[in-house]
Amino acid sequence: MGSSMKIGIINGPNLNLLGSREPEIYGRDGFEAILSALQTRYPAHTFVYYQSNIEGELIDAVQDMALRQGCEGILLNAGGYTHTSVALHDAIKAVSVPVLEIHLSQVAAREEFRHTSLIGAACRGSIAGFGKDSYRLGVEALTSSL
Amino acid sequence: MGSSMKIGIINGPNLNLLGSREPEIYGRDGFEAILSALQTRYPAHTFVYYQSNIEGELIDAVQDMALRQGCEGILLNAGGYTHTSVALHDAIKAVSVPVLEIHLSQVAAREEFRHTSLIGAACRGSIAGFGKDSYRLGVEALTSSL
Amino acid sequence: MGSSMKIGIINGPNLNLLGSREPEIYGRDGFEAILSALQTRYPAHTFVYYQSNIEGELIDAVQDMALRQGCEGILLNAGGYTHTSVALHDAIKAVSVPVLEIHLSQVAAREEFRHTSLIGAACRGSIAGFGKDSYRLGVEALTSSL
Amino acid sequence: MGSSMKIGIINGPNLNLLGSREPEIYGRDGFEAILSALQTRYPAHTFVYYQSNIEGELIDAVQDMALRQGCEGILLNAGGYTHTSVALHDAIKAVSVPVLEIHLSQVAAREEFRHTSLIGAACRGSIAGFGKDSYRLGVEALTSSL
Amino acid sequence: MGSSMKIGIINGPNLNLLGSREPEIYGRDGFEAILSALQTRYPAHTFVYYQSNIEGELIDAVQDMALRQGCEGILLNAGGYTHTSVALHDAIKAVSVPVLEIHLSQVAAREEFRHTSLIGAACRGSIAGFGKDSYRLGVEALTSSL
Amino acid sequence: MGSSMKIGIINGPNLNLLGSREPEIYGRDGFEAILSALQTRYPAHTFVYYQSNIEGELIDAVQDMALRQGCEGILLNAGGYTHTSVALHDAIKAVSVPVLEIHLSQVAAREEFRHTSLIGAACRGSIAGFGKDSYRLGVEALTSSL
Amino acid sequence: MGSSMKIGIINGPNLNLLGSREPEIYGRDGFEAILSALQTRYPAHTFVYYQSNIEGELIDAVQDMALRQGCEGILLNAGGYTHTSVALHDAIKAVSVPVLEIHLSQVAAREEFRHTSLIGAACRGSIAGFGKDSYRLGVEALTSSL
Amino acid sequence: MGSSMKIGIINGPNLNLLGSREPEIYGRDGFEAILSALQTRYPAHTFVYYQSNIEGELIDAVQDMALRQGCEGILLNAGGYTHTSVALHDAIKAVSVPVLEIHLSQVAAREEFRHTSLIGAACRGSIAGFGKDSYRLGVEALTSSL
Amino acid sequence: MGSSMKIGIINGPNLNLLGSREPEIYGRDGFEAILSALQTRYPAHTFVYYQSNIEGELIDAVQDMALRQGCEGILLNAGGYTHTSVALHDAIKAVSVPVLEIHLSQVAAREEFRHTSLIGAACRGSIAGFGKDSYRLGVEALTSSL
Amino acid sequence: MGSSMKIGIINGPNLNLLGSREPEIYGRDGFEAILSALQTRYPAHTFVYYQSNIEGELIDAVQDMALRQGCEGILLNAGGYTHTSVALHDAIKAVSVPVLEIHLSQVAAREEFRHTSLIGAACRGSIAGFGKDSYRLGVEALTSSL
Amino acid sequence: MGSSMKIGIINGPNLNLLGSREPEIYGRDGFEAILSALQTRYPAHTFVYYQSNIEGELIDAVQDMALRQGCEGILLNAGGYTHTSVALHDAIKAVSVPVLEIHLSQVAAREEFRHTSLIGAACRGSIAGFGKDSYRLGVEALTSSL
Amino acid sequence: MGSSMKIGIINGPNLNLLGSREPEIYGRDGFEAILSALQTRYPAHTFVYYQSNIEGELIDAVQDMALRQGCEGILLNAGGYTHTSVALHDAIKAVSVPVLEIHLSQVAAREEFRHTSLIGAACRGSIAGFGKDSYRLGVEALTSSL
Repeated sequence: MGSSMKIGIINGPNLNLLGSREPEIYGRDGFEAILSALQTRYPAHTFVYYQSNIEGELIDAVQDMALRQGCEGILLNAGGYTHTSVALHDAIKAVSVPVLEIHLSQVAAREEFRHTSLIGAACRGSIAGFGKDSYRLGVEALTSSL
Repeated sequence: MGSSMKIGIINGPNLNLLGSREPEIYGRDGFEAILSALQTRYPAHTFVYYQSNIEGELIDAVQDMALRQGCEGILLNAGGYTHTSVALHDAIKAVSVPVLEIHLSQVAAREEFRHTSLIGAACRGSIAGFGKDSYRLGVEALTSSL
Repeated sequence: MGSSMKIGIINGPNLNLLGSREPEIYGRDGFEAILSALQTRYPAHTFVYYQSNIEGELIDAVQDMALRQGCEGILLNAGGYTHTSVALHDAIKAVSVPVLEIHLSQVAAREEFRHTSLIGAACRGSIAGFGKDSYRLGVEALTSSL
Repeated sequence: MGSSMKIGIINGPNLNLLGSREPEIYGRDGFEAILSALQTRYPAHTFVYYQSNIEGELIDAVQDMALRQGCEGILLNAGGYTHTSVALHDAIKAVSVPVLEIHLSQVAAREEFRHTSLIGAACRGSIAGFGKDSYRLGVEALTSSL
Repeated sequence: MGSSMKIGIINGPNLNLLGSREPEIYGRDGFEAILSALQTRYPAHTFVYYQSNIEGELIDAVQDMALRQGCEGILLNAGGYTHTSVALHDAIKAVSVPVLEIHLSQVAAREEFRHTSLIGAACRGSIAGFGKDSYRLGVEALTSSL
Repeated sequence: MGSSMKIGIINGPNLNLLGSREPEIYGRDGFEAILSALQTRYPAHTFVYYQSNIEGELIDAVQDMALRQGCEGILLNAGGYTHTSVALHDAIKAVSVPVLEIHLSQVAAREEFRHTSLIGAACRGSIAGFGKDSYRLGVEALTSSL
Repeated sequence: MGSSMKIGIINGPNLNLLGSREPEIYGRDGFEAILSALQTRYPAHTFVYYQSNIEGELIDAVQDMALRQGCEGILLNAGGYTHTSVALHDAIKAVSVPVLEIHLSQVAAREEFRHTSLIGAACRGSIAGFGKDSYRLGVEALTSSL
Repeated sequence: MGSSMKIGIINGPNLNLLGSREPEIYGRDGFEAILSALQTRYPAHTFVYYQSNIEGELIDAVQDMALRQGCEGILLNAGGYTHTSVALHDAIKAVSVPVLEIHLSQVAAREEFRHTSLIGAACRGSIAGFGKDSYRLGVEALTSSL
Repeated sequence: MGSSMKIGIINGPNLNLLGSREPEIYGRDGFEAILSALQTRYPAHTFVYYQSNIEGELIDAVQDMALRQGCEGILLNAGGYTHTSVALHDAIKAVSVPVLEIHLSQVAAREEFRHTSLIGAACRGSIAGFGKDSYRLGVEALTSSL
Repeated sequence: MGSSMKIGIINGPNLNLLGSREPEIYGRDGFEAILSALQTRYPAHTFVYYQSNIEGELIDAVQDMALRQGCEGILLNAGGYTHTSVALHDAIKAVSVPVLEIHLSQVAAREEFRHTSLIGAACRGSIAGFGKDSYRLGVEALTSSL
Repeated sequence: MGSSMKIGIINGPNLNLLGSREPEIYGRDGFEAILSALQTRYPAHTFVYYQSNIEGELIDAVQDMALRQGCEGILLNAGGYTHTSVALHDAIKAVSVPVLEIHLSQVAAREEFRHTSLIGAACRGSIAGFGKDSYRLGVEALTSSL
Repeated sequence: MGSSMKIGIINGPNLNLLGSREPEIYGRDGFEAILSALQTRYPAHTFVYYQSNIEGELIDAVQDMALRQGCEGILLNAGGYTHTSVALHDAIKAVSVPVLEIHLSQVAAREEFRHTSLIGAACRGSIAGFGKDSYRLGVEALTSSL
């Protein structure tokens, strides 16, 4: 992967509320601000963004970004579907571009039912716990340079 | 956290073999090369490094870096102790500097017994699956800037 | 909460079949009749109704009724998603109006996989087993007066 | 069931402390006040009340109210026995009058060991999370009118 | 054990309803009829009978019959406590006379939560599934003669 | 069922990628080719086809084909939802036409989380492991003739 | 059932060693002595006996005694197959004569893996813990007379 | 596989009772009638049939049909051994001809202990729930032609 | 807490047999002797003693000693109810005086079902394994002085 | 045990296929070659060999070799029955000669369901993972000389 | 044990931080102050103290104090190793002096993973929840005098 | 492997006590005697020996013997770490020389928590239950000759 990439970002259920929902856990910025900050910081990259509360539309988006829009990597914050969706796991397995599992909060430190990720085994890597910076780290990971 | 930090890096069991052990999983660089690349890339930061195969010495190191050496953040790749060590969990809880859980491989995609992290709930964040870049992402996470 | 409320009612998967599907369990009235009876009995309240078989649209509805339509309380019969949806749990947690878990049948007396509610922990209260009256009790609960 | 009923109310262990015990969970009214409010609100109904900390005396009471006192419905808040008593389950199954499971708090939102109800499968319906109003809703449920 | 014994029979919760409760499972005779038939058939034996719905009173009875009343064997149908009572297990272990686990129905063929017996490991033997004859077989077992 | 039937075929998540996704598991034909081959082989039957990545739309389709389109049987390949969807189970239970569980691969030979089917208990029969022929066998099963 | 019956007795694996194998658990009589004592005590009954160490031959015997030899009841001590055989469960279910589960020792007081009976749910009743008398009690149970 | 095959059919425990055992689950035809109907319908194929109640003889049969009799495919209805036999799993793995798992009933809709198949992971495909037609579908599957 | 306290001691099921029951585990002194030795050794303290085999009476006693008798601390040996009583847990939580979990034997070294304490989470501390001295250590703990 | 022993070797299901079945796991020698090599290497010992695919015949063989043929030790490779046979466990417990658990492959490194041995607890020792040498080590173990 | 003893005290991982680490759970005294207070209060006893964060050094210490230093009793606070160390369990079992399990906090009231003690079954007794007094109670327990 | 090898032997926790600790389980010889007997019996081989109670030092030793000392095989008795150490598993996986799992006792016949080996899946083979001869058999296994 090079210095100029097309990167897909997919946010799952309830992340449309970012900034208002439980700010002590998820922070106070809406995702538009995060996306804009990402674009500012990484001007060479192109970002494609999608959010839906519907599991199947996240699957559509993974397929679409990977197979039709030509994204070279996808940052996927699947929210609550992280822990329950075999179908999303299959979508990630079905495409060849790297998909990274992204979480705002440190899910391992929350309720028991958030400790299992059904999509993790299909993802290239996982980043959790850094608030909005989790997305920036995802971009860094896709364009790794060490 | 600022642009110039003292950062501790602690590697657990078998990571002294990095570069020779199962390179298809862990990559071909020894950790010296990784550390040197980190220092080159982040000249403003000071890196303190420690490796041990002994669980209790990792606990010593967490305590020592956090309480005596003045590290402002710790990257901890606890290797196999990730999945079995309550004592290491307690050490992380006992210090106030942020400790990040780092893995070279995507542990969620490996054996069942690697899917549970006993230290994750005590860490500020988790990064897994990016090979040597997992450490660089950890440095970025500690000095977050988005 | 006062004597005149705006109350949202959200029905999940297969509840569009109410009246025809397994009437020995769910009764013979379609939900239109139930809604109409509720409006007749509680003329001072305003009822907003939504049904979908799609998990994510139920999340949309919870958000929409609570944050945009100004509902002061929500009766949620999530049907089969009750037992599998972390995402719906998160939606309920993300809004501040009280959401009540409603079931027509006594789910505790049915198959093992219906004994666990993933949304219950996010709801203000739960009512199950009273057929169409479960909804009326939900209205009473939202306008509690003892 | 008609507009004038004889209704049994059975409270289990520690509910004699209602009003003093953990008021942030259970409210500040003793049960006498709740019972009196119920009688005031439903003057046509007759209420029979019993409380005991002893599991077997709750079984006695279920049998006695149903078979000898002629109660047409029973509201049973079995407290801690809810989660451990097969014997109480059997008592409910053994009588033909409807028994409703009542809880002051939303048990699904509390400790793991409160998430399983051994008596729920034997009850006609369940109401939880509405404080003292849970009992009023129980009365409404027994005299359902939608 | 000889041809003339003093035998204790202890019945647990809800067995006072025998004859009326779920007759398709438990039969139509009250226990008085069963006891009387036993006495008629085994005139040389003395029978001591006790029933309670209270777990602790069953413990009292086990102790009392074994240690003070001189019973040489006890038939214990612990009903629902069979599956939940460590305390009753301990009472049986604490006395030296043989205690037999008796059930009217074939508990292994009923609900899952009736498949585990917490008292079985403390009993000398178990007899289940023969209706009122389970008690007679218990008497035969105590006076074994093959 | 006779020699001329209207048969619904519903494909779930990621089956729109058939032919390109993991061909070593799922084969190289897209579903259009499979459908066309079915129609050719069974000219007397009418086939109605639907695919969606959205769980709730699969529920809609089951209801619609069974209740409105007059299909006399449904072949349902629910993909990843097979293992997680109580709501789909309920939809199948709610209609009276036979629904068959169809899988391209032998799911029992794949990951542990694919070994449990939540919809199997609601289906008339199950066919797995025969690639595109699983659908043909489903047609044969619906028109059984031995 | 009357006073003169044809009764089948089937012994499973290792019961051919009765009398020599672990006598502190199983007693010192071989089964021939037990059978002979039974015949002496119950001269009106006819006993048919079979022993095999082979699971499938026990199934053959259940079928044969029930369907061809005209036994009116079967005492089955399935030994170690008690805890592992679904096939034997099915054989018992497949015949209409009552089959009783018989054990010499009190299995509930032995190793954990002996606490589950796969055949119990298919049997009419269970008798365990009375040594050779378990068989006599089985005969009494088949010819119940209280 | 071609239009003329040698096909082995192996039936496990209790299937010798087919036609008389629980006909509401298994149908009223004996297997002879089923086999004859198969032969009539598929005159080009040669059928080899074996039935045993003995697990090890089923293993013998799998080996024999595959390695010595030259069967090109095997339909195996292992009955109750389906859920408990690692040895049969190994036999199937040990031969290279395709073995199909066949069930008359929809096992997923029956008792919990029938939901796990130990042989499924070794079989080429599975067909369940179609009564005698399950065998015909198995023949079709072996001679797939879509 | 000072040098002169009112201390409640509550013993649960079967502890009335102390001295006679399984002396190799529980010792040979009756509790009267233990209580008398405690009073002799701690003359400044007042001891209130209660024993019952009835779970609910132990709850009554916890409430009564804490709320009405003015005990400043309670030593509770709940015997077999330790492992099964949510209701007793709730009683301890409901009072504010410290309740200590006391056991004569080292329960962690006994049967598996004694390894879980349902009351431990509600108690201030736990002492197990020291025979009658467990009570003396409880007194010391309540009057701690290090 | 001395330098000249009579040693029984019992091979379980599918080991008759040794040399042809999955040679990458089990090696390419048939057992006749292995047996002959053993006899050559240990001319002073007498070897008795038995193989069967039938669980109960393995039990017969354990009994026969130990009790009638005078074998002083038995090497038992129970194959798939290792993980499922309580009956074989009982047979080993029932004889006093040492029985050793032998495996060609390192079962701990294979499928999850091979990680539990039901016969191990009854055997004197276990040897796994050395291919045909596992048998030779078994002979060495029986004639131990260090 | 008499009035003058040599007592070993072993503290495990992170207890070197006592006084600074999470003081709301563990108190504000360092262990030196606790040890000094113990010596002052029990001048007749000799105390030997050891702390390590290394599991194996705790094993060394148990062995050394028991076998070489002549300690007559050991107070062991194994910290996080309490819940994970079979090796420490073995060390305790391997020495004959009494080892007591000591905890500052009431571990039963903390996270689920602290509810299981792997060393408890090897210890003579357990004391938890009394802060620094847990050690004093341990000394009292070793020198029991009631 | 040839007739002259360099063989590493690594003993884990508490094996330094061999000969004194629980001799009925582990025998009465110290390991020096065992090592000396091995050397005497196998004069052509070179033995390298290491013992530690520290998990990480065992890892060091595995690495050191395999990678630096040139051992051609390692016998590893990991004691209690066998059941809890993922880190040791990783060390064995990380080296290419064969490592054998050695136990003095038959661990499958001891406590439940000893039935799982976390290192077994990484070892070439396993030998358990032969006392000191387990080591000799390990040497034989490394130099296999059948």
